[in-house]
Amino acid sequence: MKSYQTMTKEELLSLKNELEKEYNAFKARGLKLDMSRGKPAADQLDLSMDMMEVLDHTSNLKCEAGIDCRNYGCLDGIDEAKALMAQIMENDPSEIIVYGNSSLNVMFDTVSRSYTHGVLGNTPWCKLDKVKFLCPVPGYDRHFAITEYFGIEMINVPMTPEGPDMDMVEKLVSEDASIKGIWCVPKYSNPQGITYSDETVRRFARLKPAAADFRIYWDNAYGVHHLYDDIQDNLIEILEECKKAGNPDMVYKFASTSKISFPGSGVAALATSENNLKEIRKQMSIQTIGHDKLNQLRHVRYFKDLDGIKAHMRKQADLLRPKFELVLDTLEKELGGLEIGSWIRPRGGYFIAFDSLEGCAKAIVAKAKEAGVVMTNAGATFPYGKDPKDSNIRIAPTFPTLEELGTAARLFTLCVKLVSVDKLLENR
Amino acid sequence: MKSYQTMTKEELLSLKNELEKEYNAFKARGLKLDMSRGKPAADQLDLSMDMMEVLDHTSNLKCEAGIDCRNYGCLDGIDEAKALMAQIMENDPSEIIVYGNSSLNVMFDTVSRSYTHGVLGNTPWCKLDKVKFLCPVPGYDRHFAITEYFGIEMINVPMTPEGPDMDMVEKLVSEDASIKGIWCVPKYSNPQGITYSDETVRRFARLKPAAADFRIYWDNAYGVHHLYDDIQDNLIEILEECKKAGNPDMVYKFASTSKISFPGSGVAALATSENNLKEIRKQMSIQTIGHDKLNQLRHVRYFKDLDGIKAHMRKQADLLRPKFELVLDTLEKELGGLEIGSWIRPRGGYFIAFDSLEGCAKAIVAKAKEAGVVMTNAGATFPYGKDPKDSNIRIAPTFPTLEELGTAARLFTLCVKLVSVDKLLENR
Repeated sequence: MKSYQTMTKEELLSLKNELEKEYNAFKARGLKLDMSRGKPAADQLDLSMDMMEVLDHTSNLKCEAGIDCRNYGCLDGIDEAKALMAQIMENDPSEIIVYGNSSLNVMFDTVSRSYTHGVLGNTPWCKLDKVKFLCPVPGYDRHFAITEYFGIEMINVPMTPEGPDMDMVEKLVSEDASIKGIWCVPKYSNPQGITYSDETVRRFARLKPAAADFRIYWDNAYGVHHLYDDIQDNLIEILEECKKAGNPDMVYKFASTSKISFPGSGVAALATSENNLKEIRKQMSIQTIGHDKLNQLRHVRYFKDLDGIKAHMRKQADLLRPKFELVLDTLEKELGGLEIGSWIRPRGGYFIAFDSLEGCAKAIVAKAKEAGVVMTNAGATFPYGKDPKDSNIRIAPTFPTLEELGTAARLFTLCVKLVSVDKLLENR
Repeated sequence: MKSYQTMTKEELLSLKNELEKEYNAFKARGLKLDMSRGKPAADQLDLSMDMMEVLDHTSNLKCEAGIDCRNYGCLDGIDEAKALMAQIMENDPSEIIVYGNSSLNVMFDTVSRSYTHGVLGNTPWCKLDKVKFLCPVPGYDRHFAITEYFGIEMINVPMTPEGPDMDMVEKLVSEDASIKGIWCVPKYSNPQGITYSDETVRRFARLKPAAADFRIYWDNAYGVHHLYDDIQDNLIEILEECKKAGNPDMVYKFASTSKISFPGSGVAALATSENNLKEIRKQMSIQTIGHDKLNQLRHVRYFKDLDGIKAHMRKQADLLRPKFELVLDTLEKELGGLEIGSWIRPRGGYFIAFDSLEGCAKAIVAKAKEAGVVMTNAGATFPYGKDPKDSNIRIAPTFPTLEELGTAARLFTLCVKLVSVDKLLENR
């Protein structure tokens, strides 16, 4: 296809005329479609329905350690749930705490605890004038919302195809003791689907932070969330790398079964060093008597082990792959060669990131909304909701049906074209 | 029985000799009994076993509002869970947030949020030099642990048979703006089983706090936890009273099904004013995407309504009543008239509080432990674990079997006698 960049004003105006007709035809359809959030579709949840009855009134509800899972106790999770999460997370069960249904809640509590009580004897952040976090961008809006809520200054770090710009990370972290953390989604990143390279992970592990309480917030949300059997990204295990590099306490690693079993009723976990675990357990012992052990047991009895998880995730992939491919093929077919946007073809995760011409993202999302297709707010993938280039748009292809998705993706590309034409006309 | 107080030195010495023989016989039995924590026994949990299968793979898992309970969303609880908790709590569903499995966690988060972000625009507690809480004593150790964790100074307020000493509460709260809260277990209090009188509740509602961000932490943990059908304590509803008194925002009210269904897998809730709810929901929207809605649905489908809850709690009472009566009868039979201790006969809740002669509680608990019976640590019912009179001991009769409990209660009274004799001999 002919690049929009090389078109004359007349060509663009005539194109605009055509595109507007097409857009108005879409509008007339009164669509109501949603590509905004990384929610599994109902058919994905149906895959886990047998888990609903894995425990019944005849079940032995004692865990391996002999604890009655119905009752109080067992602060940091039952052993077999630790073992299952350890397999998913590629850690040792002794490095794991199993929580309730939300890893976001665990991250919030981790920041909150650092704010109120400090990290391993360091000054609580609430007593400091300035606390900063590095935020690889584009990134996950809910991460940024947590640090914003605690008044933590967020510094954008650009993503590369290998992960965050490590030159910048190394420089900032080693020079500025007010930098206390960095948000990472290291595998099939939200929203780009990038997996950090081996070198990136090793450079993370070898960081020399100015702050003793600097921590990497390693949200491995999509560790087993591949789209393909044969081409899968591989991520090196960060705790082990940090140990080797003499930085054993530098990472909090998060994961959950939210996008394995049920988003609202999964099991979340954290893996970190023994020093960190001790501190966290101390706070937990004040905060709660323990999380839902029956749900932990339900997950273990249903999935059994990593093989069970993998088999299950293959079924999820069978449902998700066509959706990703439909969107990616539509982008390619409609926008390929036009030079008005770029995207990465992810091998897993929940999102596709689209980068429009500068200054177009908000207008594209608004245009899509006007025609009945809800996208994630433009800017949401940046701290404070501010994309300096107004360019990044997160596409979440999982929740709509294939049919809805086809329509939504087509409309999206049409909006991209329309807004891009307007943008190009500004300089003609 | 003859009062120990009137015995001569010789009588006490001879008594001591006898008691020691009896104690040694107990010791020789190598007991391993636990009367330390307010845990339901397995037979109580068995009452809810059908709840395990109220949801199965054929169930409609949408809540009344049409939300798929398996998926993300619905931050503050599904409507029907709000309705059920509202009935239990005697509030309107619009005043309720439904949480995960732990009301303690909700209380911790409430204090933590006040510490980091303040209450309705008031200065965050972490920015204040001094924050204080009033603590009716004896009280619940886990409440005190939360305020201690946040460095909040705790002030003892004596309990009376009507509830906390309200003259003292009114005076302190109106004079000292650094007093930001008071911990209350208003019905079948932990550990005394006292229910606040109507007058006490009304005086709470009419408080004129010096601090705009003073809040009553009203932990109604035992609202429906009666031991008897015919004699039940009644507690006036505090939110309504506060509204009437012009203090609508002054209470956070907590409850859970932990001791209705399963302690580890129940549903917790908070009731408070619309102003407070707005602030809390704002924080929740950063902290989590939502709590376990399937478990909320499970509770609603199983219990249905307040009648279902009441019928269930009658079955619980049938199991608990004999245990309470066994301990109380043993206290009466073994210690009645001896003038070496006092206790209150509760009509509900989970505990019996025993007050020994001054300076004896620690020694009694140690002696019981030496013979294989674990009690709650003496002092635990006071802030910082410090009972100024070293007199209060919390007895938790629910978890052991009746047979175990009989033995444990007998041994306990024997330890009371032995330690009291020693104490009296000091002054002979």
